[in-house]
Amino acid sequence: MAQVCILGGGFIGRFYADSLTGRRGKDQVSVVYARKEETAIRFAKDFQVAHYTTNMEEAIAHPATEFVVIALPNYLHEEAVMLCVKHKKAVLCTKPLGRTADEALRMTQACEKAGIFAGYLEDLCYTPKFLKSLKSIQSGALGRILWAKSRETHPGPHSDWFWDIQKAGGGAVLDLGCHCIEIARNFIGKDVKPVEVMCWADTQVKPIDAEDHAIGLVKYENGAIGQFEVSWTFRGGMDLRDEVMGTEGTIWINSFLRTGFEMFTSGAGKSYVAEKAESDSGWQFPVGDEAHELGYTNMFTDMFDAYEKGESPMETFYDGYVVNAIIDAAYRSAKTKLWEPVQLPEWRGQEGLSKPSVFQEYDADHWFIKEEILPNGDKKLILKVKATGEIIEKETWV
Amino acid sequence: MAQVCILGGGFIGRFYADSLTGRRGKDQVSVVYARKEETAIRFAKDFQVAHYTTNMEEAIAHPATEFVVIALPNYLHEEAVMLCVKHKKAVLCTKPLGRTADEALRMTQACEKAGIFAGYLEDLCYTPKFLKSLKSIQSGALGRILWAKSRETHPGPHSDWFWDIQKAGGGAVLDLGCHCIEIARNFIGKDVKPVEVMCWADTQVKPIDAEDHAIGLVKYENGAIGQFEVSWTFRGGMDLRDEVMGTEGTIWINSFLRTGFEMFTSGAGKSYVAEKAESDSGWQFPVGDEAHELGYTNMFTDMFDAYEKGESPMETFYDGYVVNAIIDAAYRSAKTKLWEPVQLPEWRGQEGLSKPSVFQEYDADHWFIKEEILPNGDKKLILKVKATGEIIEKETWV
Amino acid sequence: MAQVCILGGGFIGRFYADSLTGRRGKDQVSVVYARKEETAIRFAKDFQVAHYTTNMEEAIAHPATEFVVIALPNYLHEEAVMLCVKHKKAVLCTKPLGRTADEALRMTQACEKAGIFAGYLEDLCYTPKFLKSLKSIQSGALGRILWAKSRETHPGPHSDWFWDIQKAGGGAVLDLGCHCIEIARNFIGKDVKPVEVMCWADTQVKPIDAEDHAIGLVKYENGAIGQFEVSWTFRGGMDLRDEVMGTEGTIWINSFLRTGFEMFTSGAGKSYVAEKAESDSGWQFPVGDEAHELGYTNMFTDMFDAYEKGESPMETFYDGYVVNAIIDAAYRSAKTKLWEPVQLPEWRGQEGLSKPSVFQEYDADHWFIKEEILPNGDKKLILKVKATGEIIEKETWV
Amino acid sequence: MAQVCILGGGFIGRFYADSLTGRRGKDQVSVVYARKEETAIRFAKDFQVAHYTTNMEEAIAHPATEFVVIALPNYLHEEAVMLCVKHKKAVLCTKPLGRTADEALRMTQACEKAGIFAGYLEDLCYTPKFLKSLKSIQSGALGRILWAKSRETHPGPHSDWFWDIQKAGGGAVLDLGCHCIEIARNFIGKDVKPVEVMCWADTQVKPIDAEDHAIGLVKYENGAIGQFEVSWTFRGGMDLRDEVMGTEGTIWINSFLRTGFEMFTSGAGKSYVAEKAESDSGWQFPVGDEAHELGYTNMFTDMFDAYEKGESPMETFYDGYVVNAIIDAAYRSAKTKLWEPVQLPEWRGQEGLSKPSVFQEYDADHWFIKEEILPNGDKKLILKVKATGEIIEKETWV
Repeated sequence: MAQVCILGGGFIGRFYADSLTGRRGKDQVSVVYARKEETAIRFAKDFQVAHYTTNMEEAIAHPATEFVVIALPNYLHEEAVMLCVKHKKAVLCTKPLGRTADEALRMTQACEKAGIFAGYLEDLCYTPKFLKSLKSIQSGALGRILWAKSRETHPGPHSDWFWDIQKAGGGAVLDLGCHCIEIARNFIGKDVKPVEVMCWADTQVKPIDAEDHAIGLVKYENGAIGQFEVSWTFRGGMDLRDEVMGTEGTIWINSFLRTGFEMFTSGAGKSYVAEKAESDSGWQFPVGDEAHELGYTNMFTDMFDAYEKGESPMETFYDGYVVNAIIDAAYRSAKTKLWEPVQLPEWRGQEGLSKPSVFQEYDADHWFIKEEILPNGDKKLILKVKATGEIIEKETWV
Repeated sequence: MAQVCILGGGFIGRFYADSLTGRRGKDQVSVVYARKEETAIRFAKDFQVAHYTTNMEEAIAHPATEFVVIALPNYLHEEAVMLCVKHKKAVLCTKPLGRTADEALRMTQACEKAGIFAGYLEDLCYTPKFLKSLKSIQSGALGRILWAKSRETHPGPHSDWFWDIQKAGGGAVLDLGCHCIEIARNFIGKDVKPVEVMCWADTQVKPIDAEDHAIGLVKYENGAIGQFEVSWTFRGGMDLRDEVMGTEGTIWINSFLRTGFEMFTSGAGKSYVAEKAESDSGWQFPVGDEAHELGYTNMFTDMFDAYEKGESPMETFYDGYVVNAIIDAAYRSAKTKLWEPVQLPEWRGQEGLSKPSVFQEYDADHWFIKEEILPNGDKKLILKVKATGEIIEKETWV
Repeated sequence: MAQVCILGGGFIGRFYADSLTGRRGKDQVSVVYARKEETAIRFAKDFQVAHYTTNMEEAIAHPATEFVVIALPNYLHEEAVMLCVKHKKAVLCTKPLGRTADEALRMTQACEKAGIFAGYLEDLCYTPKFLKSLKSIQSGALGRILWAKSRETHPGPHSDWFWDIQKAGGGAVLDLGCHCIEIARNFIGKDVKPVEVMCWADTQVKPIDAEDHAIGLVKYENGAIGQFEVSWTFRGGMDLRDEVMGTEGTIWINSFLRTGFEMFTSGAGKSYVAEKAESDSGWQFPVGDEAHELGYTNMFTDMFDAYEKGESPMETFYDGYVVNAIIDAAYRSAKTKLWEPVQLPEWRGQEGLSKPSVFQEYDADHWFIKEEILPNGDKKLILKVKATGEIIEKETWV
Repeated sequence: MAQVCILGGGFIGRFYADSLTGRRGKDQVSVVYARKEETAIRFAKDFQVAHYTTNMEEAIAHPATEFVVIALPNYLHEEAVMLCVKHKKAVLCTKPLGRTADEALRMTQACEKAGIFAGYLEDLCYTPKFLKSLKSIQSGALGRILWAKSRETHPGPHSDWFWDIQKAGGGAVLDLGCHCIEIARNFIGKDVKPVEVMCWADTQVKPIDAEDHAIGLVKYENGAIGQFEVSWTFRGGMDLRDEVMGTEGTIWINSFLRTGFEMFTSGAGKSYVAEKAESDSGWQFPVGDEAHELGYTNMFTDMFDAYEKGESPMETFYDGYVVNAIIDAAYRSAKTKLWEPVQLPEWRGQEGLSKPSVFQEYDADHWFIKEEILPNGDKKLILKVKATGEIIEKETWV
């Protein structure tokens, strides 16, 4: 059983508490900290939390706190983590880990040095669809991964601090891209080194200093490409989709707007439909169990199980740091307009990979390119002559 | 915390155990009974169950048994329930409750007389999509419910006894129709009396005595219609879909084959994709977390929570009995080719409902029928003259 | 080149004219008849029609009329057809052919006796998806057809006369069921005799004498089942879906609301989205080319090509008559609550079919029932012992 | 009526001929040229073409040739166009227009100078879904366009010359990107200048010199972004999808693999399913009428109509040249890894656009950022203080 202290009583704190309670789980929220007392009181009441406080250190140090769950604005993550280090409490931090890789690396090293358990709350790497996809990919069903794209776009985040570049550390790339980057990284392989990043980012709609729309490409050492598409300007709800291309297959995941649940309503009997839905009449696309579909329940299960078994969780502070390093490169790229190298002073994966060969033998004299059946039933075989490099086709007419 | 004894080590018993363990739940499986010792041993090992036995009564009477979960073939349900009554253990029974309403009513009454908790394990009335739909419908988002269809078809069940009409008590209607009937009944309103049933059933493909395909209509006292479509002859996987029409809206649920998760694979790296999938290459449609999407986790949560609070669960033995009564009428109808009355010697809902009026006033002289915009932009208003009954249209040209 | 006279200047007449003109087709609309002069004038102007009139016989007899296309209310079909017979003009009649099979048979026989070309404008049996499905089914891709369901529901038709049971001859069954019945009949096989019909029909929402919602089952001589679901009370647009189950496969067609075209709009820049759409903001589901997707262009191509080649079109008056006979049985059934025989005084297909055998040999001693892979990788084979009828299973554990 | 000469008897030539004949069109194919005589003979027979030849100039100069349709490998386009110029024949050229913008500009200028009609056969800018989307966007339903993405990926093209970088002039970018670029350009606005391009391209799977996978971003002068994703390495069929984001809405188009037509087959009765489908058993996703859904029929309609009216078609050689200029920049970018300027020595659209303001007034003191309803019903309003730039939130609790 895990005794949890939640730092932060806002949107994400409530989502975490929802995921931890009310499911006949053996874990419980025992302490809550919020900056405003009224928020703390309301939270404690809504989720039956025994202790509440507006003093962060008090919350962390509280004897009823075994795990600290950081659900605070980005600019407070490092402070909160360092207090966990001080009080030797296991710590789980929401995404992104830091505003920069420097912050993230400091947190990672401090926790490792102190020997405390540190989990990175990257919920979208725990959705049921993601986990099953990852298993399929690891079993080889898609062959060698060529490209992994993840997209998260919606009409913008819930709280003021997200829109303030000082407090948040960035815009849509930091807020949403952290998910997309880690999803693609998992599919491509966590031990494959991200090498360089190209990113376009712009402020197209909102009156803010940070970007509200960005697209980025992350090149990995083995030639695979990760892609992220993020925006706070999307209309129509929250769009969460992933796509993977491999030499042997394809995966398409829709995690939110098209999950096999469709409702039309004239607007009678108004009620909450889904996170970031734009309307409560017309065609609606609710999600059955949002917290589960967004990965929260599997995430906490992995965290607490790993802790109890003395193992690493699937997503660690180190992963958060790699993600931050990729984001740092993305922000540099958005300014310099160059492919920017990913700076990873600490890298624990494979080194020196290269792109696999593209030559597949057809027979002693030819490399294979393709074969196909045409609409009228004709067959075509396309080959490359080894000796000359010439490309030839052999047709079989019906 | 619930201490659970599972009776039956087959497909559904394993699915129940999967749902109860490994999710950081506070409940545990403490006893397992199976007819064959090797099955019991394997089950106990796979799910870390402390006690196993091939003696059903011993399992039920075991001190480590607080809840009995019946995951046995249909012809053994009554015997198992009566042993729970004898030993005063809370009992949860898989679907269908009985082979007939008579059996189901005897079980219901025996449990009520003994004062034991009795829950009906109708998992598909606990799927995340179902629960959210039910909430929307109850909030009025669909207005008055006119029709609720539920479809479950797949290439046939897992165990020999399903195909034996003596042991199962029926074919696809009993096996799958029980889900569909209860889904529609929930959407229409559990306190609305099912009045009569028309059912077509046939053995189209399989060499068995029971039906392998059936379609039925259930008429409710308020004029609403429930529809079930069930088959063991479907090709392409397991098709689980519900549709609801109301005066103010529509719901379409796809619970299995199209849930926003699509995979193409050449067949490399073969692995389990989904329950009743027919192939492991080509386009696949896995479900993220099958047990959750099929309602198992929410179902046990409701059962144990209700027990601890001293309340009724959402699905009770009484509900199972009403479903069996509708199925009995369906089987009679399939033979007599008549609309057969639903015989409910015990009915606890509303009585004497009738169909609501279809007259909606447009103005003092007219009833409203419809208004529409045509492709060229013209507008049409269609009305019924109160005085004469004449139907008229008023057109506005662009 | 076909010179066409359109009778009727309403919704369907305009749709027909749209399909015939503006596509670089060699056919043209040369004459139009409408009951009201203003409608005729507007139609002639919108579609560049040389001649217009409010006299039906004059339109039919007109020298510029080679083909007569009847786009009139149901109660005028027979009169119009008889005038075509009188003037020996090729005739194409909209659906349903008659209000009853009697009317339809009289029209069929009159045209045949007069030797004029008579085509039945059943557009939904000409949609691109329908035609490709039919070809797949005829090639054997689905094996033996077990069940074919067609659904058409929307918020109600465009003109006053539809809602008047005297003029229309019926309600949703006649208006929409005629499509669904002929679709299923094509998939099952046009030469397979429809034997009996069970139909539920009710007036649930609209203040009219005819039914606004109905569901029917049509049993064919070979044991196959056709199903229709029709309604004028559906909310959310126009729902056009077909489903087919065969021993070797499945087809699912969505012809309107989900065709791979999705749009969200705040409502800015209002414009026509789709036939029977309910709103112009929120999520919309337009169809690319409505007239083509609804089969109109392929339908006229088949009609005129067949005429020029001296062949029968795919859909003839005889087909319209069979559909009417099935509808007649459906209306009787809705009243008597019995399976009503389809009365076909004239039947030109096969006679004396029966249901195929369900016995498929596994080995010398067993009939085959099923084999399956379970979630944990176990394999199950289910067989019936020929000698005893006993059902057994063979399990292979991982 | 148009008399058409088709140059090229391969895959695309046949698709064009299919689209031109057999639909009761008034246009006809009167001459065909192919490099090999057997191909020319077969083509003439299959499509009832009166004249065939293996001499290109003879075909163009033929008196039965009014329109020349170029369906030849890329390296022959310029030669064919110049012969049309010489013989003053109207010319329609398949995509891409040139291998480079230089080639394309020469062709464009030669035709304009000669005063001959020149149409660019960009079929995917004529699909029914595209045309309806374009109309919606032009009506303002999506507001200001922020981003337009088009994706075309499949397992590789049909003929040997595509795979030969000398003959084709490039790989997937030239073959598929030309579609994607022009689709996005239409949605963003054809008179908005494309400014610079960033492209990643690699040869990941095939043993060829050109790229088999690429992703590109095209920045327009008004700040809008076009995106293309192209590949010859995709598994699962042909993936054709477009997405558009605007300030007021969203469009998602799926033109091929998910169009509301789904079929499962065991593989019985094998037949052609769809262009570039990978298998004929399991789940299949056919397209109803491929030629129509891919835009061919609308494209020729526009071309011939425009010619007869003395107008420009929707897609001209000038458009083909702009596309080539963007592709040239993409290829430079793939090598230099820089954002490369689009070089348009000839530009006929708007100049000097800039990105619109992001400031939307909420009240005298605040800029508007966002408002939202949270899961528990709370409301949040996020604003920017004009005077200070501070971002604030106002919460309304339930």
